[in-house]
Amino acid sequence: MIIPADDRGFTLGDGLFETLLWEDGGLVFWPEHFARLERGCRTLGLPAPNERAALEVVLPAGQVLGETRGAVRLTLTAGSGGRGLDRPASPEVRLVATAAPVPLVTGPTTLATATILRNGGSPASRLKTLSYLDNILARREAVAAGADEALMLNADGEVACAAAANLFWLKDGVLHTPALECGVLDGVIRRRLLAGSPLPTREVRAGLDAVRTADAVYLTNSLIGIRPVGRLDGQDLPMQPEFHQQSAQVIAADRRGRK
Amino acid sequence: MIIPADDRGFTLGDGLFETLLWEDGGLVFWPEHFARLERGCRTLGLPAPNERAALEVVLPAGQVLGETRGAVRLTLTAGSGGRGLDRPASPEVRLVATAAPVPLVTGPTTLATATILRNGGSPASRLKTLSYLDNILARREAVAAGADEALMLNADGEVACAAAANLFWLKDGVLHTPALECGVLDGVIRRRLLAGSPLPTREVRAGLDAVRTADAVYLTNSLIGIRPVGRLDGQDLPMQPEFHQQSAQVIAADRRGRK
Repeated sequence: MIIPADDRGFTLGDGLFETLLWEDGGLVFWPEHFARLERGCRTLGLPAPNERAALEVVLPAGQVLGETRGAVRLTLTAGSGGRGLDRPASPEVRLVATAAPVPLVTGPTTLATATILRNGGSPASRLKTLSYLDNILARREAVAAGADEALMLNADGEVACAAAANLFWLKDGVLHTPALECGVLDGVIRRRLLAGSPLPTREVRAGLDAVRTADAVYLTNSLIGIRPVGRLDGQDLPMQPEFHQQSAQVIAADRRGRK
Repeated sequence: MIIPADDRGFTLGDGLFETLLWEDGGLVFWPEHFARLERGCRTLGLPAPNERAALEVVLPAGQVLGETRGAVRLTLTAGSGGRGLDRPASPEVRLVATAAPVPLVTGPTTLATATILRNGGSPASRLKTLSYLDNILARREAVAAGADEALMLNADGEVACAAAANLFWLKDGVLHTPALECGVLDGVIRRRLLAGSPLPTREVRAGLDAVRTADAVYLTNSLIGIRPVGRLDGQDLPMQPEFHQQSAQVIAADRRGRK
């Protein structure tokens, strides 16, 4: 698959993407992902795509996977444009979809705190945008430190999210997650867990100590669902297998496939 | 010109670009731009391109312009990659160049302060990266406010730079510009003016008031050289035509073309 070199997604990171779980031959949580894509377009000032047109791009990509578990990525760009930052008067968005097998990973993951900060001062920090270089750099730092994934803070020293996942932690029977205002990706699974958590939830502004002293720490995204964090910056974290299992069931319940 | 849809510049904004002035049939300040590209590759952990290979891409693009003044854009991406944030073990960078005529613009420009902040907490804020969405959003705000260009602050309320230019201001006979640590693009013309300014220079951390109360305000980049700012957030700014003319000569002096 090819795209023109004047695509603003390529030249300037001007666009969005969604990563959907493909399972049992269908898309999981398509309505939630498409709704987020629409919200993102509004935030960026781009015309939202037609849902049917998006599905006509997404489904053939996913169907190549058949019954294999995988990720379907839908990329939306601001389309072709001329030189410079300014978009054409009426940008025509471009939709591209790709798919890849992704086996289910279980067991705890490990986090390292990155020096690269989230930009809480941009609405783009709440979106899955094509300008994801900070996330790449944070992930690189974490991997260099021997961890699987990066924990990212904002300029105020507040925890935000991982490079490619949302962050949750349990403390005294309450499930905490950073507020979107901290520069947090507005994750589909994050919303789902906040709505259906077996324990009360709280969106907070909190520092790293809150995570370090938690009763359990988790990452969520569409591909991993919910995954426990076993180590943060080399320090072992406690685990709560019962809560993890309950939460995983909440996330998996009522999966809406759409072929 | 086309690129594969698995290019990491397209999928994640993983790469850099340079915008060079093409004038009198040749590239201006090629060594400075190429040196910056090399520094950027080091910061991002990408292999730096071979200079001859880069010129073999850049020059044919520029030569289409002939004697017409224009911009040659060199794009360097992390190359093709699989799913997810992690690069391949040995990424092979991709180089693409395009060119477009750009007439010389003279006369004062106008600025509006953007709500979108620079991410001083990422080294990417000092580089011309393919993750330029914040700059696009800032420019959109400025244009919506009736201005030509956006003035961007960082999370500490310090002035940083414009969406596509560096910022300078004169005060009491000293030429000021925000320090790179404020989240400032390390501009080729910025360096040149700091080195050759007809007045003493100072790299500072400063708030918006310093700019509002300056004796004159300027933007610099490779295509505009140095351009006076006539209005900031609707407020007229004083001008110093003599200093502007001297500085423009400094920037233009010793232009190193390379065909």
